[in-house]
Amino acid sequence: MILFISFLIIKIGRRVIAQFFANKRRGPFQITKRREATLNKLILNTLSYVVYFVAFIMILETFTINIGALLAGAGVAGLAIGFGAQNLVRDVISGFFIIFEDQFSVGDYIRTSGVEGFVEEVGLRTCKVKAWTGEVHILPNGNVTQVTNYSVHNSIAVVDVSVAYEENIEKAEQAILQLLEELPDRYEEMIGVPQLLGVQNLGASDVLMRIIAETHPMEHWAIARALRKEVKTRLDAEGIEIPFPRMVMYSRDDQAEPSQAAE
Amino acid sequence: MILFISFLIIKIGRRVIAQFFANKRRGPFQITKRREATLNKLILNTLSYVVYFVAFIMILETFTINIGALLAGAGVAGLAIGFGAQNLVRDVISGFFIIFEDQFSVGDYIRTSGVEGFVEEVGLRTCKVKAWTGEVHILPNGNVTQVTNYSVHNSIAVVDVSVAYEENIEKAEQAILQLLEELPDRYEEMIGVPQLLGVQNLGASDVLMRIIAETHPMEHWAIARALRKEVKTRLDAEGIEIPFPRMVMYSRDDQAEPSQAAE
Amino acid sequence: MILFISFLIIKIGRRVIAQFFANKRRGPFQITKRREATLNKLILNTLSYVVYFVAFIMILETFTINIGALLAGAGVAGLAIGFGAQNLVRDVISGFFIIFEDQFSVGDYIRTSGVEGFVEEVGLRTCKVKAWTGEVHILPNGNVTQVTNYSVHNSIAVVDVSVAYEENIEKAEQAILQLLEELPDRYEEMIGVPQLLGVQNLGASDVLMRIIAETHPMEHWAIARALRKEVKTRLDAEGIEIPFPRMVMYSRDDQAEPSQAAE
Amino acid sequence: MILFISFLIIKIGRRVIAQFFANKRRGPFQITKRREATLNKLILNTLSYVVYFVAFIMILETFTINIGALLAGAGVAGLAIGFGAQNLVRDVISGFFIIFEDQFSVGDYIRTSGVEGFVEEVGLRTCKVKAWTGEVHILPNGNVTQVTNYSVHNSIAVVDVSVAYEENIEKAEQAILQLLEELPDRYEEMIGVPQLLGVQNLGASDVLMRIIAETHPMEHWAIARALRKEVKTRLDAEGIEIPFPRMVMYSRDDQAEPSQAAE
Amino acid sequence: MILFISFLIIKIGRRVIAQFFANKRRGPFQITKRREATLNKLILNTLSYVVYFVAFIMILETFTINIGALLAGAGVAGLAIGFGAQNLVRDVISGFFIIFEDQFSVGDYIRTSGVEGFVEEVGLRTCKVKAWTGEVHILPNGNVTQVTNYSVHNSIAVVDVSVAYEENIEKAEQAILQLLEELPDRYEEMIGVPQLLGVQNLGASDVLMRIIAETHPMEHWAIARALRKEVKTRLDAEGIEIPFPRMVMYSRDDQAEPSQAAE
Amino acid sequence: MILFISFLIIKIGRRVIAQFFANKRRGPFQITKRREATLNKLILNTLSYVVYFVAFIMILETFTINIGALLAGAGVAGLAIGFGAQNLVRDVISGFFIIFEDQFSVGDYIRTSGVEGFVEEVGLRTCKVKAWTGEVHILPNGNVTQVTNYSVHNSIAVVDVSVAYEENIEKAEQAILQLLEELPDRYEEMIGVPQLLGVQNLGASDVLMRIIAETHPMEHWAIARALRKEVKTRLDAEGIEIPFPRMVMYSRDDQAEPSQAAE
Amino acid sequence: MILFISFLIIKIGRRVIAQFFANKRRGPFQITKRREATLNKLILNTLSYVVYFVAFIMILETFTINIGALLAGAGVAGLAIGFGAQNLVRDVISGFFIIFEDQFSVGDYIRTSGVEGFVEEVGLRTCKVKAWTGEVHILPNGNVTQVTNYSVHNSIAVVDVSVAYEENIEKAEQAILQLLEELPDRYEEMIGVPQLLGVQNLGASDVLMRIIAETHPMEHWAIARALRKEVKTRLDAEGIEIPFPRMVMYSRDDQAEPSQAAE
Repeated sequence: MILFISFLIIKIGRRVIAQFFANKRRGPFQITKRREATLNKLILNTLSYVVYFVAFIMILETFTINIGALLAGAGVAGLAIGFGAQNLVRDVISGFFIIFEDQFSVGDYIRTSGVEGFVEEVGLRTCKVKAWTGEVHILPNGNVTQVTNYSVHNSIAVVDVSVAYEENIEKAEQAILQLLEELPDRYEEMIGVPQLLGVQNLGASDVLMRIIAETHPMEHWAIARALRKEVKTRLDAEGIEIPFPRMVMYSRDDQAEPSQAAE
Repeated sequence: MILFISFLIIKIGRRVIAQFFANKRRGPFQITKRREATLNKLILNTLSYVVYFVAFIMILETFTINIGALLAGAGVAGLAIGFGAQNLVRDVISGFFIIFEDQFSVGDYIRTSGVEGFVEEVGLRTCKVKAWTGEVHILPNGNVTQVTNYSVHNSIAVVDVSVAYEENIEKAEQAILQLLEELPDRYEEMIGVPQLLGVQNLGASDVLMRIIAETHPMEHWAIARALRKEVKTRLDAEGIEIPFPRMVMYSRDDQAEPSQAAE
Repeated sequence: MILFISFLIIKIGRRVIAQFFANKRRGPFQITKRREATLNKLILNTLSYVVYFVAFIMILETFTINIGALLAGAGVAGLAIGFGAQNLVRDVISGFFIIFEDQFSVGDYIRTSGVEGFVEEVGLRTCKVKAWTGEVHILPNGNVTQVTNYSVHNSIAVVDVSVAYEENIEKAEQAILQLLEELPDRYEEMIGVPQLLGVQNLGASDVLMRIIAETHPMEHWAIARALRKEVKTRLDAEGIEIPFPRMVMYSRDDQAEPSQAAE
Repeated sequence: MILFISFLIIKIGRRVIAQFFANKRRGPFQITKRREATLNKLILNTLSYVVYFVAFIMILETFTINIGALLAGAGVAGLAIGFGAQNLVRDVISGFFIIFEDQFSVGDYIRTSGVEGFVEEVGLRTCKVKAWTGEVHILPNGNVTQVTNYSVHNSIAVVDVSVAYEENIEKAEQAILQLLEELPDRYEEMIGVPQLLGVQNLGASDVLMRIIAETHPMEHWAIARALRKEVKTRLDAEGIEIPFPRMVMYSRDDQAEPSQAAE
Repeated sequence: MILFISFLIIKIGRRVIAQFFANKRRGPFQITKRREATLNKLILNTLSYVVYFVAFIMILETFTINIGALLAGAGVAGLAIGFGAQNLVRDVISGFFIIFEDQFSVGDYIRTSGVEGFVEEVGLRTCKVKAWTGEVHILPNGNVTQVTNYSVHNSIAVVDVSVAYEENIEKAEQAILQLLEELPDRYEEMIGVPQLLGVQNLGASDVLMRIIAETHPMEHWAIARALRKEVKTRLDAEGIEIPFPRMVMYSRDDQAEPSQAAE
Repeated sequence: MILFISFLIIKIGRRVIAQFFANKRRGPFQITKRREATLNKLILNTLSYVVYFVAFIMILETFTINIGALLAGAGVAGLAIGFGAQNLVRDVISGFFIIFEDQFSVGDYIRTSGVEGFVEEVGLRTCKVKAWTGEVHILPNGNVTQVTNYSVHNSIAVVDVSVAYEENIEKAEQAILQLLEELPDRYEEMIGVPQLLGVQNLGASDVLMRIIAETHPMEHWAIARALRKEVKTRLDAEGIEIPFPRMVMYSRDDQAEPSQAAE
Repeated sequence: MILFISFLIIKIGRRVIAQFFANKRRGPFQITKRREATLNKLILNTLSYVVYFVAFIMILETFTINIGALLAGAGVAGLAIGFGAQNLVRDVISGFFIIFEDQFSVGDYIRTSGVEGFVEEVGLRTCKVKAWTGEVHILPNGNVTQVTNYSVHNSIAVVDVSVAYEENIEKAEQAILQLLEELPDRYEEMIGVPQLLGVQNLGASDVLMRIIAETHPMEHWAIARALRKEVKTRLDAEGIEIPFPRMVMYSRDDQAEPSQAAE
């Protein structure tokens, strides 16, 4: 049975690849650890595609079906298949460039084609991205034209804090700056002292101040949460008010009804 | 009658396939239970397509209509049919890759092409997805380019709780953390102790805290509902306020009307 | 006159088809009643297309216009017609698969391509869908790529009820559960006892509880309306409050105006 | 002058067509009145296209320009014209099917391709739709792929009425039902007694009840307006309140300011 | 210089065309005034295109460049030009049909392809539309697939007036109807007596009544403004209230705080 | 070095073009000043394209690479290049028509393809548009299908002013009209006396009156700002109120709680 | 090993290029510093593409696979590859024009195809853009059709300030103008004195005044923040009120309930 031999080849292939990657670490080709995981999965994925494809051709031949003739012969059908297969070719070409240009590797946090998450696998035709809430997005590589990679550079945590219009801005700024100086010692994911950018907006009922902090890649969510808590606690301690929405209300006598007033 | 024989073949085919899957469980090819259901339905589906297609060709031949000549002959019509059939080919190729790459199986909860639900059937040309409110979505496989599968990994239940600005954040966090420790014993769909991430947002009238809990696949909706009830009851017991929307109101004398004041 | 004979053929054809379907019910091919209505309309529709098409060709021939030569001859025109006819072919292929795969039948409630309603007719090229407010949507079959069929499985009625934050959730749940037990006896479209899922949301001024009830296909709208009335009446009787929007208001002295306070 | 003869032919053609339709009413081919208006306009429209087209060809020939050679000769230009003319062919094919399948006739109220209104004319290449506010939409038939026709079946008038939460729902339902019984006698466009569907929504400050009434085609707007007035008057008479938006307000002492409270 | 002769020809052509249109008014071909302006501009526009195109060909020939060979020779370039020129052909064909079917003329107010305004010029390739705020939209004719023409029929002015729920609807209707009777004498752009359609909506705080008035084309904006003023003044005079937004407020004691109440 | 000679040619070319434009002003071809700037930049831009293109071909030839053979030979590659170059051809054709039809010139304010600003340069393949906030938009000419040009005709400044329902509309109109009469003397960018159109809307809490003023092209923003200030000051002086949002509030006793009331 | 030699060539190539750019600074070709960084990265990127491509061809040849024959031979596959490769060609052509037309260089802040950020690298096929929050966007050049470049001209900081309706506009304008005069000395990124444009909007509760300031490229965010703080502090000092949202409230007796009033 051709299928059985295919299974065997794949099993052996897996061992060989695992061996190869184990050795390589000592070899001269110094690949970064990050690319290694990606290549490992990719080669396994490619192996199974190739083996099954060859097996499929061989099975057809045992039934004495000549594919070449089949494809060349049927004019209309050939046209239809040519157009249909167009996507397949596009996916493989895209996949090749993802690896070759190192757009992203297994473990990176990316956003592409409307989905976001950690890359689980980059295959010959599709790649898998796992969202932080657990679901797996499976994308044909041809859809991955434009990628945003969050794991290459440090991230920036952005925190906006409201201060009441009645407060003295200078005083509030001093309190926050003093706090920011103390933070890098307490949070090691932070890089350098966070910055207080200034008055981001003069809102309807509050002055919005923006704070940014550089963090290790993908630590900005955690750091932003910590920053919010720290700032809130400090402003409470300093007696600086974080304002609720405000409104000025003019009460009027109902006697002065519009329609009567206009007479 | 060719149609009658076709019916017969399909009936026999179904028995054979049922038999085959019953035996296979004892055989050497260990297919996961999950794929078995998928393949069973797929093979039945493919069988009926093939049998009816052959029957259709045979009927045409009994009427001595030569299809080959027909297709090759009519130039303009052939072109039109070639373009029209393009979608059919695309659907079958896509269907093949869904099965081959195990993108999803019967029973998985997926989202694709704007619909969400449990997979009912993966066919040669279309697949059927049943929404939780009962309706069935029928999709050509060619539309299933990008799939989100919720049944592969554990899910995460996300619960956001508001706490009043007047509350001490530390105290609220302690109360919630204490509750979270007790929960895994009571809900077996939960995996590990849920986490309190921290201050997700400093809102207009409340401090938003986020809690996440890992659960078995697709149990996150039920667990999130349970978590909400538990947290609400605990915060009530601890006397921590879940705030209503707030507003500060300045009442002003109507005498001080804008237009007069400006004089 | 060719047109006159066409009329005759169609009239006779209708009788034969009606006869055929009357007989079939007693015959060996057991078609479900649901498909019968669909096929009846489809065959009538196809008949008129074919008869008129043949008549059209015959009329052209009486004027001794050779269509074959016409199509083959005009190069540029042929190209334009080929592209133009592409949609026609696509519509007929799609129509064939709708029937063959039994995606929907006459009488089903479906949603597709932005319209919703009961299927009135599935034709060779178009299908007609009647909305519940009376208008008829006419769709080429080629637009019906992705269908949602509401008539295959039981429907689920979803009712969301708000309960005030001050209420004891346990007490409200007991009151609702007690009510739900009584309902299946009163509404026969309901299947099994409706479920109280739990706390769906901790809103700004209310705790939202979700109730779902399985119903016969397309009875979920009526059942949801009945459920709403029943729950509202019961909560009133139990003295559990369905809350209005709430707001906490801090009144402040206008003397403390922002700009002055900041000095 | 060729142009002059064309004018003559069109003038004569119009008379003949008018004569033809006048006779037809007495003839054997019983066409519905609705289709007659459509066909009348269509044939006039087609006539002028054909006459002018023939005239255009003849003028070219008098200048001894051979079009056939022109089209066949210029390779690149031919390609460009072929693609450009594609829309023209698509429009004519679509127009043919609109008439043949009787999708809509002159006088129907339709919605298609983002416009709504009464059909004024169905031509060979375009159709004209007049909106109720007076403007005319001119659409190429190729854009009319998906049509919604409001003039085929009876319409349904939908009226939603709010009732206060404090009201007894049963009493409000009785009052409305009593009113609905009396209505069909007063409004002859109504078909049968309107139905009170029940509680459509449990809103933030009101219970929403839905009433539907079957009417003659396109009378639903007028009937809905009448229904609203009747229901409003009856509820007033019965002393049942139609509620304004509601809100529960908690007044709090400003001394208890958030930041101080947290110390 | 070829360019110089081209200038001369265009100058002379303009005179001839002006002369021609001046004579035509007395000639037998009675063209409506509306189309005359359109044709005048169109012929001028076409003239300059044709003259410059011939000049361009002649200049190339003086440099002994054979265009025919150029186009036929370069296979790849020819393909690219063929595709690129496709839009040009489509624009000219569309432009032809705009004139031939009299879709709109210079001076009409139209909406098409996302822009609105008065038509300034219909050219061979583009048309110009001037918005009421002064800017000019330049559209290739190929974008003008679907046109809305406001200048063919009379326009309808639509005015919605709010009346308070406390008012007697009958009384308000009488007051408005009385006013509407008086209006056609005062505003001559109005055609017939405006209609009071009835209760368009039962809003949150008001009963919305709709008034429509038929006007000469494009006078509906001015008439709607006049109607609003007239109705407002009349309702004031009759003492019928146009309501402000309303709200019912329940004040509650803050002691009854949610969390404590639940214990 | 070919590159070096190219540099030289471009430098000399620039001088010649500058000379040419300087002379032209005295020559017979009277080009408007506006087009001159456009043509100047365009010719420079075209020059560098042509010179570098020729240089590129010559360099390839020095390496004895035959491009013609290259293009004709590689079938698949040729196809790919043909499609890829399609955009390039489309851009150049579009660019040509922008200049030839004088759609816009350097210095005009235009909106096209989602961007707005002053035209900086119209090139052979792209054009540059500078937004008023300083950024430069670079658009391929093929994207510039539909253009809105603000610099051809006078602009209209539109100002909407709210007046309270209690005010007498006539009195407010008189005050505004009186003001508008005085304005043209003070603002010279204004053309004629601004118009008071009338009651644009009967809003929830105010009567909206619309004022329009014709201005020189692109002066409408400045004039609108001036108008707003003038009108506000005048209405203040006349004691006519510009209203704040209004609301009618019904206070209700909380004892009358919904749920109890319903018993 | 071919791969090994490729590595070597790339390493050497990098040295040569670095050397070349170091020398160039003293050479005759004066390239701006800005373009140098771009070219440096581009040449490195192109080098690795070309070397690996040649290596890939050589490896195939060592396995004696004739690519030319392969491509020419397989008809259907060739068609599919031709279409698939179309994007690749488009990307390279686009990339070439980005460099040739100097649309943007490494270090510029651009917005294109939905992403914004500083350009990190312009490659043969893709370019990399780094957002200010740290993530890297990787775009195929073919997606970069329309670019907005913020680094070419000076930027404009736009600040909108609300002033209460009760304030005298003249007085507020004076205070702001006085402040703006002092600013250029304190902020050196500012160019010239910022302008007070005037009354941008007559809002529901405030008069909105707009201030703009010209700054060095990309300094407008920082300057806008500084401006907001300065203006706020100055208005506080001058005692000019920045208003909260306002509302006029009419309290009405609940006895006057709508439904009763209407009797």
